[in-house]
Amino acid sequence: MSVKHARDVEKQIVKAGDKTTIQVLISSQEGPNFALRRFVMEPGGGMPNHTNTVEHEQYVLAGHATIGIGTETFDVYVGDVAFIPEGVPHWYQNTGEENFEFLCIIPNKPDVIEILEKEC
Amino acid sequence: MSVKHARDVEKQIVKAGDKTTIQVLISSQEGPNFALRRFVMEPGGGMPNHTNTVEHEQYVLAGHATIGIGTETFDVYVGDVAFIPEGVPHWYQNTGEENFEFLCIIPNKPDVIEILEKEC
Repeated sequence: MSVKHARDVEKQIVKAGDKTTIQVLISSQEGPNFALRRFVMEPGGGMPNHTNTVEHEQYVLAGHATIGIGTETFDVYVGDVAFIPEGVPHWYQNTGEENFEFLCIIPNKPDVIEILEKEC
Repeated sequence: MSVKHARDVEKQIVKAGDKTTIQVLISSQEGPNFALRRFVMEPGGGMPNHTNTVEHEQYVLAGHATIGIGTETFDVYVGDVAFIPEGVPHWYQNTGEENFEFLCIIPNKPDVIEILEKEC
């Protein structure tokens, strides 16, 4: 690939999420070191607290949300950047009235997702 | 770092470019495998034909431009994604009337930039 438009990339439902889709914009087959993905979470959607075995570098494209990283929570908006180290619990909740969209880059390494129990 | 806003990240002038700045949103010290940068090229700005020793994965955030990758040229707009393999000549020209902004992710490997002669 050289250039493509994100709208032409297939959207896949994120089973572990709620009202959440992912598009693999540049796959681990296309890029030798990391993959570029775009997530869209509809209003009310999100992902429960979970861990991954790879780190995430993220950039908010649209909307806003509350996200949890470790024991901290953040309200994030367009232009915010998040770094989630491997193994650190994190979650997302679209608390706005429009889609929450962000890019998420991960290294080309095996990723295992583990959904954590809800904290009461 | 966990979360920061792009507007709070220092802008540095790209010496090899014209009317072009770079912000290192997540540095190679912060991320273990790759760095997330944001480029802004003012109207009329850009970068001449050059090569890098690392690949680029890019996402257009605002504006539009004409870019060259190898022997091909592309008009790119918001939501376009570009992959530039290591060693492949590429250039950028903001052909619009607003800033051309894009994210550019590179691996944590030594990067040497080489400016190429203009083709006549």
